[in-house]
Amino acid sequence: MIIHHHEAMQYAVRLSYEKMLDGAGGPFGAIVVLDNKIIGVGWNQVTSSNDPTAHAEIVAIREACQHTFSFHLKSAILYTSCEPCPMCLAAAFWARIDKIYYANTRQDAAEIGFDDKLFYEEISKPLHLHQVSMEQVGREEAIKVFEAWMKKTDKIDY
Amino acid sequence: MIIHHHEAMQYAVRLSYEKMLDGAGGPFGAIVVLDNKIIGVGWNQVTSSNDPTAHAEIVAIREACQHTFSFHLKSAILYTSCEPCPMCLAAAFWARIDKIYYANTRQDAAEIGFDDKLFYEEISKPLHLHQVSMEQVGREEAIKVFEAWMKKTDKIDY
Repeated sequence: MIIHHHEAMQYAVRLSYEKMLDGAGGPFGAIVVLDNKIIGVGWNQVTSSNDPTAHAEIVAIREACQHTFSFHLKSAILYTSCEPCPMCLAAAFWARIDKIYYANTRQDAAEIGFDDKLFYEEISKPLHLHQVSMEQVGREEAIKVFEAWMKKTDKIDY
Repeated sequence: MIIHHHEAMQYAVRLSYEKMLDGAGGPFGAIVVLDNKIIGVGWNQVTSSNDPTAHAEIVAIREACQHTFSFHLKSAILYTSCEPCPMCLAAAFWARIDKIYYANTRQDAAEIGFDDKLFYEEISKPLHLHQVSMEQVGREEAIKVFEAWMKKTDKIDY
């Protein structure tokens, strides 16, 4: 489906509204666009699919990658009805998305009860200050696997 | 399957090694444990499934949630063979995971060519300093959807 820049965010916002009314999850919608074509569509499905990772952007990125048969989305644009949370922003980074347009902000999300802003603050802290306890164990064995990766001759980088 | 704390990381590391050898993706494994039972298992499948979000922790969390029929994993423990990247750490936050054990660090991952450390640095920056361009458009319409969410009487918080 062809879509122009000025319509793309409207589409993402419409998704956020309609799917929220349907009871899919929180009020968030997103699309991935490449060369003026929609290649991925997503809306929040956390509560309806029992999947805490089913945010609009993650769903749209996963669909776009299935469409392009690739784990990278170079030159693609993400339109999302709200600033991505750290999970979704890092997913866009891993997918090598080229540009992100967002409408509502993390502050807006905080004001309606979502934890995006809190998680940004948590993630920027040193590990020992996190509210979720993190502890290192077993590096001695695990580092050997990283050494094996370095020696692997047929590995695919991502 | 019953698993004790001292075996759990060994299992995650073994997964990271065996699935890497199989060509599934990068050298990362993870499990979710609740009451000494494994309820989710994951390994990196980015390149084999064309899914940039298919990190070990995301896969394990998604499986655990399907197992428990819930979008939250309160009291659950995540064992991961490497410190979670920002995407996976935020996923653990959204899932309300209680505790995270990790083996290799983000620095170890950087040394074998992965961008976890870089993405932590990016995410902690103000938006206008990100390498991936981010631009706000269309808040005027999008904020109305947030207002509608606030008024929704049958919403499910997460």
